[in-house]
Amino acid sequence: MSGDWVSDANAALLTDLYQLTMLQAYFAGGMEERAAFEFYVRRMPARRSFLLAAGLEQVVDYLEHLRFDEAAVAWLASTGRFEPAFLERLVDFRFTGDVDAVPEGTVCFANEPLLRVTARLPEAQIVESRLINLMHFQTVIASKAARCVLAAGPRMLVDFGFRRAHGAEAGVLAARAAYLAGFTGTATVEAGRRFDIPLYGTMAHSFVQAHAVEADAFRHYIDCFRDNNTLLIDTYDTIAGARKVVALAEELRASGIRIGAVRIDSGELDDLSRAVRRILDNGGCGDTKIFVSGGLEEDQIAVLVEDGTPIDGFGVGTTLDASVDEPVLDCAYKMQDYAGRATRKLSTGKETWPGRKQIERHRDRAGRLLRDDVVLESDPSNGERLLVPVMRVGRRVAGLPTLAVSRELAARELAALPTALRSGSGQGRYEVRIARSIRALAEQLDQAGARSSP
Amino acid sequence: MSGDWVSDANAALLTDLYQLTMLQAYFAGGMEERAAFEFYVRRMPARRSFLLAAGLEQVVDYLEHLRFDEAAVAWLASTGRFEPAFLERLVDFRFTGDVDAVPEGTVCFANEPLLRVTARLPEAQIVESRLINLMHFQTVIASKAARCVLAAGPRMLVDFGFRRAHGAEAGVLAARAAYLAGFTGTATVEAGRRFDIPLYGTMAHSFVQAHAVEADAFRHYIDCFRDNNTLLIDTYDTIAGARKVVALAEELRASGIRIGAVRIDSGELDDLSRAVRRILDNGGCGDTKIFVSGGLEEDQIAVLVEDGTPIDGFGVGTTLDASVDEPVLDCAYKMQDYAGRATRKLSTGKETWPGRKQIERHRDRAGRLLRDDVVLESDPSNGERLLVPVMRVGRRVAGLPTLAVSRELAARELAALPTALRSGSGQGRYEVRIARSIRALAEQLDQAGARSSP
Repeated sequence: MSGDWVSDANAALLTDLYQLTMLQAYFAGGMEERAAFEFYVRRMPARRSFLLAAGLEQVVDYLEHLRFDEAAVAWLASTGRFEPAFLERLVDFRFTGDVDAVPEGTVCFANEPLLRVTARLPEAQIVESRLINLMHFQTVIASKAARCVLAAGPRMLVDFGFRRAHGAEAGVLAARAAYLAGFTGTATVEAGRRFDIPLYGTMAHSFVQAHAVEADAFRHYIDCFRDNNTLLIDTYDTIAGARKVVALAEELRASGIRIGAVRIDSGELDDLSRAVRRILDNGGCGDTKIFVSGGLEEDQIAVLVEDGTPIDGFGVGTTLDASVDEPVLDCAYKMQDYAGRATRKLSTGKETWPGRKQIERHRDRAGRLLRDDVVLESDPSNGERLLVPVMRVGRRVAGLPTLAVSRELAARELAALPTALRSGSGQGRYEVRIARSIRALAEQLDQAGARSSP
Repeated sequence: MSGDWVSDANAALLTDLYQLTMLQAYFAGGMEERAAFEFYVRRMPARRSFLLAAGLEQVVDYLEHLRFDEAAVAWLASTGRFEPAFLERLVDFRFTGDVDAVPEGTVCFANEPLLRVTARLPEAQIVESRLINLMHFQTVIASKAARCVLAAGPRMLVDFGFRRAHGAEAGVLAARAAYLAGFTGTATVEAGRRFDIPLYGTMAHSFVQAHAVEADAFRHYIDCFRDNNTLLIDTYDTIAGARKVVALAEELRASGIRIGAVRIDSGELDDLSRAVRRILDNGGCGDTKIFVSGGLEEDQIAVLVEDGTPIDGFGVGTTLDASVDEPVLDCAYKMQDYAGRATRKLSTGKETWPGRKQIERHRDRAGRLLRDDVVLESDPSNGERLLVPVMRVGRRVAGLPTLAVSRELAARELAALPTALRSGSGQGRYEVRIARSIRALAEQLDQAGARSSP
């Protein structure tokens, strides 16, 4: 799948200016040896006990299609910032490096390398901005969506958030990340088209308002959509709306048409769903489902589920698509080595662990997560290793998982979460050990640095 | 300016499924009279005393270019959800309605209509999802950026946030919204190309790390960029980094090359900037500026400015581009009337004020904001009215402001803020009165509704 954003002529310009100025300096200085960069999360957000890796497919798309077309090069030339020799190099510029990463849908934690680019320094550098932009956002959303999935259990979950997502790409990729994490589907049509995600939709309040009489709006809708229909009953009075649904169902019964579901978008969902359920059941609409929405967050879903409310499905919008409680991750894409020399950044509070790393996961007998070790890739293998080859010499390796396969992995991963991490509090913590080999390498670099410093 | 997203063949599919199902019902039922919908914010976020309207230019682009191309219609047909007669109508579907809105860069508040669409019902309805998606996001970011602008005063402010923006469009439009609000520029290259926003960039830590010796990285960079250069000095030790800059400047002085600025991206910026300033001044680099970055938020900028730290500019990234403290607005696009009949939604906590509305702004003699009245458009005019014609019969009206003009308006608007609203606490509140005429109309509708209810 090649997205319109990433195959766009200007995808190469979805970057920070300093990537281009550094690139010119690398080319000018002949600094084109191989470098390794790793993407990782520095620390867990307060309200997250685990993360769900997502966004890799879009990164691979971006890397495979990365090129500066004539228009982009001409525009860069017009800024007067760059040397002609550099701009000429851009014309043939391609990403020819390797990528190793944890598969999408994998449960992961802070300090774990989720993706490594190994490539000639200019190639590994220039991709930083867009690579973070893609990996960060979908990992934010998949991690948020996973919390909704744990809270909702087997109940239906539909992404309603496009309108308050941060732009078009965010809306479409949020639908993807949510589906990956276990959502049933989305309302976002373009996400359905692009990723083959099941689409769901009901009606807006404006539909009810456009009819002078609420019951006419219901009848009109059922007339157009005899199957698979959901009626929105809270525009004026939810209880009265439910009664109108029962009356309409009665009227339609002879023609064999049934009302699939009602939606409640406001008010006290606990009391309302019980009252509506009673009205529906007493009115012979026992198979009409109740769907709720309206600013729902996973904590509220968990309470409704624990209270045994008769709710069959949840629409989650704003809080999901903008991950309102934790809208960003403190993440980075940092150089691990260059030209065979391991490197380490020592900036206060942002120190990095050096070297090319792997995650080794330890599980109990039931397959539940016990502990992760972050080791050097060159350390002898001692467990399940999470980073796998994704791209070689600029091309994706064969057999990368489809979205459907990644979604199955996510379901298995969530099932394997230890109990402490399943709580919505986000307070559960998981042990990620930095291997002695990495600590030793860091110490060695620090001593060498101290010696060479003026 | 026609963006790639909105002129994209699939822009029409950037919508919620229910817009399409409702559209089919409207067409089938012959419900094509004119309707008015208004976009507004329901309540102010806790940490905002005012909002800055933004995103209108992209809405106009979207509405002007909205069409379902063959591929989109074919895909919709393939879902089996829609009637052939409906799909045929989509082929010629265009937005032919009117838009009135407050100009971009206008200070605004909750309960104020920021944009009104008046169009045949199907046209006014289908645009809801993308219209909110565009208006909401840029208003979120411009409102956040305005707080940074108030905090930073005359100091330079550059958007660094592309990597943690929610996707590509968010990164590019965040740069636009921040520039509109008064930022000096952005690091996002595509935003520079697309909107002619000044670009700024320095170097990454990886550039320093790629050189075995920090001073060599500085020398190499200056060699490539003799003007307009900024050196990042905190990779290993900020103080030592500053000393290396002084030594390099000394070395370069004979050739007439000077070091434009240093950047500090970590640590205690207050102490560090003072110490670095001393080192630079004592080393004859009095004209080398200090630029800081690293998770900065407007509150921190305000403290640094009030403390008189010798900082010349700020790079603001994540907290701006995802508006981390307030990532969303509780906003809506709601039907005000249909076929000449005013409408009102009564859902608990989400009641709407009916009718086509205007904002009348009252100012003191110095031009500072005093109070806004939300009135019916048909009420006699009694002050400065904020909504102006933007589109007529599907086309933009002549003379819409450019981004540069909107940026000047934003600057005047921020200058006209009452003192209470300028505080970073977001606790300042501004009076927005709902006119008696609107309350009377609402009461009239409620009584009519009570009478007609079963």
